[in-house]
Amino acid sequence: MQTSRLEHDFLGERAIPTDVYYGIQTLRALENFDITGIPLRSEPLFVQALAYVKKAAALANRDLGVLDSAIAECIVQACDRVAAGEFDSQFTTDMIQGGAGTSVNMNANEVIANVALELMGKQKGEYQFCHPNNHVNCSQSTNDAYPTAFRIALNNKLVGYSQALGQLADAFAEKGVEFRNVLKMGRTQLQDAVPMSMGDEFKAFATNLREELLRIEDSRSLISEINMGATAIGTRVNAPAGYAETVTEHLRQITGLDLILAGDLIEATYDTGAYVQLSGVLKRTAVKLSKICNDLRLLSSGPRTGINEINLPPLQPGSSIMPGKVNPVVPEVVNQTAFYVIGADLTVTMAAEAGQLQLNVMEPVISFALFTSISYLTRACHTLREKCVIGITANKEHAERLVRNSVGIVTQLNPVLGYETASEIAKEALRTGKSVYDVAVTERQLLTQAKWDEIFTFENLIRPHFIQ
Amino acid sequence: MQTSRLEHDFLGERAIPTDVYYGIQTLRALENFDITGIPLRSEPLFVQALAYVKKAAALANRDLGVLDSAIAECIVQACDRVAAGEFDSQFTTDMIQGGAGTSVNMNANEVIANVALELMGKQKGEYQFCHPNNHVNCSQSTNDAYPTAFRIALNNKLVGYSQALGQLADAFAEKGVEFRNVLKMGRTQLQDAVPMSMGDEFKAFATNLREELLRIEDSRSLISEINMGATAIGTRVNAPAGYAETVTEHLRQITGLDLILAGDLIEATYDTGAYVQLSGVLKRTAVKLSKICNDLRLLSSGPRTGINEINLPPLQPGSSIMPGKVNPVVPEVVNQTAFYVIGADLTVTMAAEAGQLQLNVMEPVISFALFTSISYLTRACHTLREKCVIGITANKEHAERLVRNSVGIVTQLNPVLGYETASEIAKEALRTGKSVYDVAVTERQLLTQAKWDEIFTFENLIRPHFIQ
Amino acid sequence: MQTSRLEHDFLGERAIPTDVYYGIQTLRALENFDITGIPLRSEPLFVQALAYVKKAAALANRDLGVLDSAIAECIVQACDRVAAGEFDSQFTTDMIQGGAGTSVNMNANEVIANVALELMGKQKGEYQFCHPNNHVNCSQSTNDAYPTAFRIALNNKLVGYSQALGQLADAFAEKGVEFRNVLKMGRTQLQDAVPMSMGDEFKAFATNLREELLRIEDSRSLISEINMGATAIGTRVNAPAGYAETVTEHLRQITGLDLILAGDLIEATYDTGAYVQLSGVLKRTAVKLSKICNDLRLLSSGPRTGINEINLPPLQPGSSIMPGKVNPVVPEVVNQTAFYVIGADLTVTMAAEAGQLQLNVMEPVISFALFTSISYLTRACHTLREKCVIGITANKEHAERLVRNSVGIVTQLNPVLGYETASEIAKEALRTGKSVYDVAVTERQLLTQAKWDEIFTFENLIRPHFIQ
Amino acid sequence: MQTSRLEHDFLGERAIPTDVYYGIQTLRALENFDITGIPLRSEPLFVQALAYVKKAAALANRDLGVLDSAIAECIVQACDRVAAGEFDSQFTTDMIQGGAGTSVNMNANEVIANVALELMGKQKGEYQFCHPNNHVNCSQSTNDAYPTAFRIALNNKLVGYSQALGQLADAFAEKGVEFRNVLKMGRTQLQDAVPMSMGDEFKAFATNLREELLRIEDSRSLISEINMGATAIGTRVNAPAGYAETVTEHLRQITGLDLILAGDLIEATYDTGAYVQLSGVLKRTAVKLSKICNDLRLLSSGPRTGINEINLPPLQPGSSIMPGKVNPVVPEVVNQTAFYVIGADLTVTMAAEAGQLQLNVMEPVISFALFTSISYLTRACHTLREKCVIGITANKEHAERLVRNSVGIVTQLNPVLGYETASEIAKEALRTGKSVYDVAVTERQLLTQAKWDEIFTFENLIRPHFIQ
Repeated sequence: MQTSRLEHDFLGERAIPTDVYYGIQTLRALENFDITGIPLRSEPLFVQALAYVKKAAALANRDLGVLDSAIAECIVQACDRVAAGEFDSQFTTDMIQGGAGTSVNMNANEVIANVALELMGKQKGEYQFCHPNNHVNCSQSTNDAYPTAFRIALNNKLVGYSQALGQLADAFAEKGVEFRNVLKMGRTQLQDAVPMSMGDEFKAFATNLREELLRIEDSRSLISEINMGATAIGTRVNAPAGYAETVTEHLRQITGLDLILAGDLIEATYDTGAYVQLSGVLKRTAVKLSKICNDLRLLSSGPRTGINEINLPPLQPGSSIMPGKVNPVVPEVVNQTAFYVIGADLTVTMAAEAGQLQLNVMEPVISFALFTSISYLTRACHTLREKCVIGITANKEHAERLVRNSVGIVTQLNPVLGYETASEIAKEALRTGKSVYDVAVTERQLLTQAKWDEIFTFENLIRPHFIQ
Repeated sequence: MQTSRLEHDFLGERAIPTDVYYGIQTLRALENFDITGIPLRSEPLFVQALAYVKKAAALANRDLGVLDSAIAECIVQACDRVAAGEFDSQFTTDMIQGGAGTSVNMNANEVIANVALELMGKQKGEYQFCHPNNHVNCSQSTNDAYPTAFRIALNNKLVGYSQALGQLADAFAEKGVEFRNVLKMGRTQLQDAVPMSMGDEFKAFATNLREELLRIEDSRSLISEINMGATAIGTRVNAPAGYAETVTEHLRQITGLDLILAGDLIEATYDTGAYVQLSGVLKRTAVKLSKICNDLRLLSSGPRTGINEINLPPLQPGSSIMPGKVNPVVPEVVNQTAFYVIGADLTVTMAAEAGQLQLNVMEPVISFALFTSISYLTRACHTLREKCVIGITANKEHAERLVRNSVGIVTQLNPVLGYETASEIAKEALRTGKSVYDVAVTERQLLTQAKWDEIFTFENLIRPHFIQ
Repeated sequence: MQTSRLEHDFLGERAIPTDVYYGIQTLRALENFDITGIPLRSEPLFVQALAYVKKAAALANRDLGVLDSAIAECIVQACDRVAAGEFDSQFTTDMIQGGAGTSVNMNANEVIANVALELMGKQKGEYQFCHPNNHVNCSQSTNDAYPTAFRIALNNKLVGYSQALGQLADAFAEKGVEFRNVLKMGRTQLQDAVPMSMGDEFKAFATNLREELLRIEDSRSLISEINMGATAIGTRVNAPAGYAETVTEHLRQITGLDLILAGDLIEATYDTGAYVQLSGVLKRTAVKLSKICNDLRLLSSGPRTGINEINLPPLQPGSSIMPGKVNPVVPEVVNQTAFYVIGADLTVTMAAEAGQLQLNVMEPVISFALFTSISYLTRACHTLREKCVIGITANKEHAERLVRNSVGIVTQLNPVLGYETASEIAKEALRTGKSVYDVAVTERQLLTQAKWDEIFTFENLIRPHFIQ
Repeated sequence: MQTSRLEHDFLGERAIPTDVYYGIQTLRALENFDITGIPLRSEPLFVQALAYVKKAAALANRDLGVLDSAIAECIVQACDRVAAGEFDSQFTTDMIQGGAGTSVNMNANEVIANVALELMGKQKGEYQFCHPNNHVNCSQSTNDAYPTAFRIALNNKLVGYSQALGQLADAFAEKGVEFRNVLKMGRTQLQDAVPMSMGDEFKAFATNLREELLRIEDSRSLISEINMGATAIGTRVNAPAGYAETVTEHLRQITGLDLILAGDLIEATYDTGAYVQLSGVLKRTAVKLSKICNDLRLLSSGPRTGINEINLPPLQPGSSIMPGKVNPVVPEVVNQTAFYVIGADLTVTMAAEAGQLQLNVMEPVISFALFTSISYLTRACHTLREKCVIGITANKEHAERLVRNSVGIVTQLNPVLGYETASEIAKEALRTGKSVYDVAVTERQLLTQAKWDEIFTFENLIRPHFIQ
């Protein structure tokens, strides 16, 4: 019984196991590229997007009369099945490869051709009836098909990420309401500054993250510019007249995305600016998440010898030696995710800079970096929300006690006493360990008890009004 | 004769030379910070923006009755003179300082107070009449005044940068027209691909850079959000009711910029997201400029043993030992500028991540990095345009000869002969060193001379049409 | 039939499937950390090193009388089986976690305890007989056990990497011999410089990479400093006198590595300097590999419109549209690997900087980054050697023709004619397209045929001697 | 009266002001490169090193008979004067330039030639008597002279840096002694861990930084490998036999440095590995300094609502609005310096990666980045020591009170009561706010007062011994 078929390309002939749908070029890629061990199928949205691109191309080629309708129909059906995930296992190429995505494109071309062949009642490998290059790849080059699929996949992947980030922001906003009446010390440069509401602190985290949602939308808009029909280098060589516009329209309908054909196809074929921009957006969010997690760890520090204004939900024993220790493990893992994403942004930067002439051959590592960063950030957002933020509680009394005992409240005397007198009071309080009240009212009698009471109400501490 | 005056702050008393306009806190900053040796005055737009902020604050304070009109008027006049550059020499603080910009803010407060005092007919240092903190800094904190001035300065600095970048793009576009009918080989992965017009290659550089102009406008919009009136941490402590809105309106009028008051002042006071975004935009342009310069160097490589399709204008002897050598020195210096900017983006990233709680204390190094990057990029754009791009010439005949002699033109036979036959021709040509014509027409007679002539016209090589 | 057992920690009780060897804390980690999806077992050397550490600790605890000999013996046997890979499947913790490695340490403690319990004839979970914390983790903290295991694993992993890199350097050295008599143009700044031997060019690649082997040895030496016995923060709390020294000696014998106990255990417990150094070494090699691959791609560019001095072995069709195109796919994938490693170095840098006070909680992402970088680089070295370098061939005649036709050979006339006259000749040759010989000998008769022949022998071009 | 002289190179003729010592090529560089505005003279050690190289070359050329003794003697005298700083003002080339250092090398060649000419009694510009290329640059190329001078300058610059860093480490060590008997809480993951001596904490900072001194020495050793005699690309073309060895020996004597001639001159001429390594060492120190400064800021946080274990010397008022606020401005500026250096390391990395074929043309930006980083770090070390570390004081009583009141001391009960019982005590203490003593001794009577007293002596808290 036959367990393999022979396939050839212009470098020679190779046996391919009968049951696999990929062909000789995918086999060569498998042999040539073994760096990450992470196969293409680990990004199912990418596999799906490749199928969308091939489907749109088949339809456009049929419309323009360069592909036989019957073959086109089989390719379309094959693409639908691939897009549905039925053949994910056949997408074996390593996530980092040489060849600017040719192996990924050929992996898709070969699988789709063989699925189509079976739909035609032919054997896998009978490419005279449906050829990976002549039919499935018709009017295309890796250099337009690959980045277009990549951009569609990114676009769809960002939807889930954006949701996760939005939900995290919402969770912070809810805490903002919950902690509205918790009075706490504001701190600048780690030094006691002036009082504030803990609710406002958490609401600010929400504001901070919600701004990212707009930036993600910017990125989605930039990566919605595609170069289908550019073929090899943007000159449209070997694509029939009208093809670029037709295939773009089909892709818009298939994907439901607002895809736009690039105005300068030469430029669009080598440009990686949209990836650099997206990577920068991911990095910015990583920077913000890291800052927020640093804050959560500071605010929950202690419990006895730190700030201890808030409690993070305990998730696991914090030490193999120190009994009772509970650590802020979720903010910690989010910090680390952020560092990963910031590193990946550098990978994208260098890969983008390394582009030469009519193509950027480093696009596979860009795709690896971006897919990984989006996945990790999405999971980090879910984890931070579910395992940490929604369970945070405030140590209201302790936080207020810190404020009342602080010197920072002296700032509110500026409009009444002037900066220099207030400074004197602060200096004396710090030198002696006394309270601002003791120095200002009791000892120096710089203001009356009544004035003091007017200024230092809870309401005026937590949401200060101007009192002269 | 008295050559110094005594000033004091809550740490003590110091002698200040009579002729200087700054005061004790600037003196302390001078002593405390000696890292870069580059003083604040090296960014005159920043000094100007500080004066704008102080002027707007004085006007708003006057409007709201918390500052005496006569004092306000003197402060305003002082600010106008500072904004005009008259006192630039007094801005001595090192570009990198601790204190989150307090030294910069106090440098401005002190200089403006002393200029105002002289306008009042008082001596410098007679702060009872116009005090750096109580009057000039009235209703402000470093934490709103400093970032607001920084953002105004960035905004204005980006105008010149954007112009320089736009002019560079224009220069490429002009070359795009000039080289419209130069036929040349397109290359992907440094391997011969398919023919193209050199004009399209240069036009693509223009397209590539013009996209950056839109990104710069995005950045200008983000940094136009300011937090005046937030005071110390965003609670508006010590600012009179309505102040934030009033001072913002004054600033809008003074600067002519479309400044917007942030909706969440707590968040706006610590957030550095707009800087990260701007830095990312500068980095993206740096990446593109570096890629373009790499291309210019590749295309002008040789002259005898490289690609040699274009000539860069010779600017200086290229070697102290190799006679006649001329190097692509301008693209080289632009590459290096790009590496600097990419490094500076990392500085900004780390500084942004290091923000804690209610303030990001690392903003001075962010300002240093951004100002420097914009300056360097602006100069690099001018240099690249004037010293290189406008003088580039094409080696038209050589470039066309390379195309005619290439194997890459075989791609245009795909629609006629199919990918596999075309591959056979290519393989044979490469093996034997023969031309595609020799193999396809003369030897194998796979197509007629007439068909060959139809396909391989100059017009069809440089701007291919689909021929089956 | 019972399919789970109950375990508890100070946060509560959880059911654990009967057949798994890990316990409640590993279960919590599984639930808490889902970022990369890559489990601890993907680094078998790390699992092995954890077993080595636990074994050494058991032996030292037994020696010092703080652990019962019978229990110690069972722990030792359990560790041997874990080190042999028998229980790899039980190491499920995500490679990035919060908790500074506590989950990894507890994963090891729990698995080893349960394996030991079965060796004792007890049921899994009967921790009164062998407890993950009290017995397996005896005299340890995560903060010494985790980094020590990490360092041992790195040490062993570097051996394979170093071999791969050395073999790659050897392959270049062999090409250096093979191409010894291939004359080619040397190029600086992509401009023709002076002639050289292609063998010397390849030998230099070997030299360049061999220097890295010494740097790797430096790194291995730095990471051989361990902090066993430091326990929680370096004060040795809860470790018996002499423990640190005894356990280190046991570890030396078990691993065969030249491990050294750190002199300052407080510092050693938080310091990540050795990782930063190692990451820098990996980055440096990545930079060099990327430069070399850039060169291989340049030198093999063409074949008709580039430099084309060498041929890389063809591995796969290079295009889905351009027939006969073969791309330098292996150098390309190595470039991309290098960009990944350079990005990972930034991750390490940021994680190292984020350490606070007595511990660096970000060590897990450091371990993830370093393990990944070493794996990828190792595979990249193998791939580059096997799939590319050993198959490179030289286009000897073409390379020599380029030299003879170049203007760069004029440099060799400097000592005879002086720099200025040589410059004149070069300028004339470049202006007219003539050869240096034509200008210097035929037209201007600046040197005799005999002198020319003396200077421009093959031997003197490829390995120049000083001729005045 | 004549105010300019005419000079020419192979691109044409230019007027040079009579009084300047540089010539036409330096003038062209001035016009071509205007990026940083920072001239070569801002690194006097580099100017000095260029003079050393030219002197050594003149001596070697004289020894080997390729340079007339009288001319050599004048060049040597000119070099001595340049090395002494007499002509620093003539070194005007921008720190970032294209041309791989040719402009820097020619700036030196021209200045030295003209100084030598005047010593001969000739006019500046009479190059027939002493020519910048033929005589001063004899047997050299930019490609060996420039990197050799750069390495000598780096080597010397590192001496001062190493001293500053060593003195900083010493200052920490002195505080280590001073704070030896200050008991404080150790913290991991910002959570209370176990007690320790504040002296050990400061001693660890010293240990941490002293390790850097060894790494700097490694770097100095790597950059002591030079390539004099390599000339253009390492083939020694145009250098007389024995020249490389002779000039290296002269340089060793002139500089007093242990310089070594590279074994593979082809490789040494393009390799930038030593710079990448040095940059990595600087980065590692920056990471450590940043971590230490983060700690100093944490430990001095408060004063009322933070940790407040130590006081940094107050240097300046910390706020323009908050009276009495004093900020940790020096650690803050050191953090920012660290971020700058880490960014500059990325610049070096990218520049190193961008090297092509026989030369790395990006060396000028590498030199700019390294010189700047070393300068900034040196000043940061001085500032941190003088303005901060030596003035730090401990809040001994407060620090001890925090320990006594903490739950973290429960760890010391592990050996007596076991991890699980200790966990119960900790949990109860945290739940109720009670002390460990109250729970363990008073309420639960798990150990006697005598045992408690044995375990929790001051001595055993600050330097724990093992008690079962």
